[in-house]
Amino acid sequence: MVLSKKPVTGMKDILPKEMQIRDYVMEMIKDTYRRFGFSPIETPCVEHIENLCSKQGGENEKLIFKILKRGEKLNLDTVIQEDDLVDSGLRYDLTVPLARYYANHANELPSPFKSLQVGSVWRADRPQKGRFRQFVQCDIDILGDASPLAEIELIMATTTLLGKLDFKDFIVRINDRKILKAMASYSGFQEDKFELVFIILDKMDKIGIEGVANELYESGFSEVAVMKYLKLFETLSDNPENGDLSGLKYLQNTLGDYLDKVSADNLSMIIDSLQKTMSGSFKILFDPTLVRGMSYYTGTIFEIEMEEFKSSVAGGGRYDEMIGKFTGNQTPACGFSIGFERIITILLDRDFRIPDTAEKRAFLIEKGASVERICEVMTEATAEREKGSQVLVSQMNKNKKFQKEQLIGEGYKSENIKDFYNEKLN
Amino acid sequence: MVLSKKPVTGMKDILPKEMQIRDYVMEMIKDTYRRFGFSPIETPCVEHIENLCSKQGGENEKLIFKILKRGEKLNLDTVIQEDDLVDSGLRYDLTVPLARYYANHANELPSPFKSLQVGSVWRADRPQKGRFRQFVQCDIDILGDASPLAEIELIMATTTLLGKLDFKDFIVRINDRKILKAMASYSGFQEDKFELVFIILDKMDKIGIEGVANELYESGFSEVAVMKYLKLFETLSDNPENGDLSGLKYLQNTLGDYLDKVSADNLSMIIDSLQKTMSGSFKILFDPTLVRGMSYYTGTIFEIEMEEFKSSVAGGGRYDEMIGKFTGNQTPACGFSIGFERIITILLDRDFRIPDTAEKRAFLIEKGASVERICEVMTEATAEREKGSQVLVSQMNKNKKFQKEQLIGEGYKSENIKDFYNEKLN
Repeated sequence: MVLSKKPVTGMKDILPKEMQIRDYVMEMIKDTYRRFGFSPIETPCVEHIENLCSKQGGENEKLIFKILKRGEKLNLDTVIQEDDLVDSGLRYDLTVPLARYYANHANELPSPFKSLQVGSVWRADRPQKGRFRQFVQCDIDILGDASPLAEIELIMATTTLLGKLDFKDFIVRINDRKILKAMASYSGFQEDKFELVFIILDKMDKIGIEGVANELYESGFSEVAVMKYLKLFETLSDNPENGDLSGLKYLQNTLGDYLDKVSADNLSMIIDSLQKTMSGSFKILFDPTLVRGMSYYTGTIFEIEMEEFKSSVAGGGRYDEMIGKFTGNQTPACGFSIGFERIITILLDRDFRIPDTAEKRAFLIEKGASVERICEVMTEATAEREKGSQVLVSQMNKNKKFQKEQLIGEGYKSENIKDFYNEKLN
Repeated sequence: MVLSKKPVTGMKDILPKEMQIRDYVMEMIKDTYRRFGFSPIETPCVEHIENLCSKQGGENEKLIFKILKRGEKLNLDTVIQEDDLVDSGLRYDLTVPLARYYANHANELPSPFKSLQVGSVWRADRPQKGRFRQFVQCDIDILGDASPLAEIELIMATTTLLGKLDFKDFIVRINDRKILKAMASYSGFQEDKFELVFIILDKMDKIGIEGVANELYESGFSEVAVMKYLKLFETLSDNPENGDLSGLKYLQNTLGDYLDKVSADNLSMIIDSLQKTMSGSFKILFDPTLVRGMSYYTGTIFEIEMEEFKSSVAGGGRYDEMIGKFTGNQTPACGFSIGFERIITILLDRDFRIPDTAEKRAFLIEKGASVERICEVMTEATAEREKGSQVLVSQMNKNKKFQKEQLIGEGYKSENIKDFYNEKLN
């Protein structure tokens, strides 16, 4: 019987070299976010199929790995459709399980609740380079805080983490779904067409303002609306020297009653507070073209962009209506998710070295050693381990030269590889 | 639309208090095993259905969460049996995926390879108190080392870890499947009945030697064989003062050619070396009644028992034939798995306190604070975080007294909760 050696399609085995970096980043995430008062939690990887398919997950709902019912619940004779076969699935994100978790445990949790969740999620995406069907997500969320303090804390925590991982020169782009909507409304687009307008607007960085104009016309929108809409963006981008807050002020003046005053003031406060507190360590920009895909966002939306890596390395926003779908009570919520796998890829590409790793020693014992000899080696290994070294105790292979070369390849220094021959032979 | 709040049957949400202990134990596991030269690796949670059903998993193969095929591969019209619907499943242990991983990557890994794998596994067991359908396993394995050094390292690493987690007075029980077989053979049992004999022997600690005798008779074994078999155990247990090595010596003398000399010598060496090296920190006992369920074991088997917890907290053994099922080449292998969930349960029951945790501070900001005020608080929080404190910055709730009580309940000291009112009001 020959079994399959390769992992299942689109999923990957992680080799020791990558794993070392993953573990380091994971420890850094937990340490940093804990200092910001986030509490680690965990939800099961398997979730009720009805929760996964509740329209919170957007396109991801098409990519669910579904789990077969078991025992008597599975009746092949009466199966009409796929839904008859399954009762659960693997989670495709950590947000839907978090909403369920909070609904289940709100009484046992403080308010506001600052959660940290790190775990694998699964999406049956078309396999492609650099994208996997199982990958780690890392989310921080603040539930029960409607104030802009939530956004400030989320952005400070995430940028602090990235700084600790040696990332520099990153840009936080921030917008608000209410500003997006006010701009569209003011320009004369109908509310039921907003999603289509935003999908086109989202391409601004790729196709430019002319490309956006063309696509809007092609979609049948009126010249008046398109012109009025794009004028806003032109005015904003023509005056970058005014700074971000002035752009926001321009919109407040221009959009008038179309724009909710509280939202605009909160966004100003977030940008202003972060610029003043974190001076120099990163840029935060108001970006009226930022859309972000998930339909569950209700307020601020934000993203972190790094020059080295074209697409974003972190994204998030406010989703004040999702928790209510589970609890029946509206609960303000805001979250930020870092792209764990992207960060690992960047660190691997950079040949990132973990600082302050323990000294690695290897003790090789000749075959046929006596109990006394083994005890001697083990006692020495224990002493070294207690001092903090990593000590590999291993039998000496027949081809000792090759064994040593392998060890050196794994980061053992030649002088730290010690041979223990049987005494009588010496 | 009201969604399901509870996790799926048999799986659990983990609250912050438990999570803190889990994270601590996880870090301790990784740190300790790294010092012993084990390399962390990861395999996908989803595994090929044919690998999961390859008879390596024993009873666990009946408990697989199976994953539905997707897209065109799923054709409901032609379904005859369950197997037509699925192509993969959630892993029920970490050993089958490790064997596949090693087969896939042997060329990229050192020999011997010392692996550490920590991850969730899933079994659709009948839900019951303290047993879950998703739980964490933590395995160390040494692949490519046929010598007793592998067992010595595995047992030293595991007992060192337990010691660091404040466990004391534990007992390592060790046996060898070859001794089990030699004793059965010598007594006159037929080889095809060995598994049945061992299942009954395994109950010795619960039903005693008389109970074992009765069940053997009830199963139709001859009086001669049963008497001869039990005589061996009686002689061994009558002479505990002789120590473990003498028990092993007695068996070597009595069983003669039935017992493979190398296996018995290796077992002696393992016990002797560990007793001499680790004097006092734990007991290691030769236990000829130790069976361990998994049929894949081929040599030594071992278990750790702790007085506080009746069943074992760790178990393992040698499985020299499993890797060959994937690679076609025989590769010696030996592993030790700790009962992560059991250890967490014991620590929670003990009200275990994590040593040296960071000071927890809470900064509460009155509603309506100015940008300047927020910056001031954030700057102070940043300074405290850089010193290593955990600082929660949060909006002051209307019911401040209740908010403070909640924080104190979560481990914030009253003097570490600081109020920040809007300056004008002070």
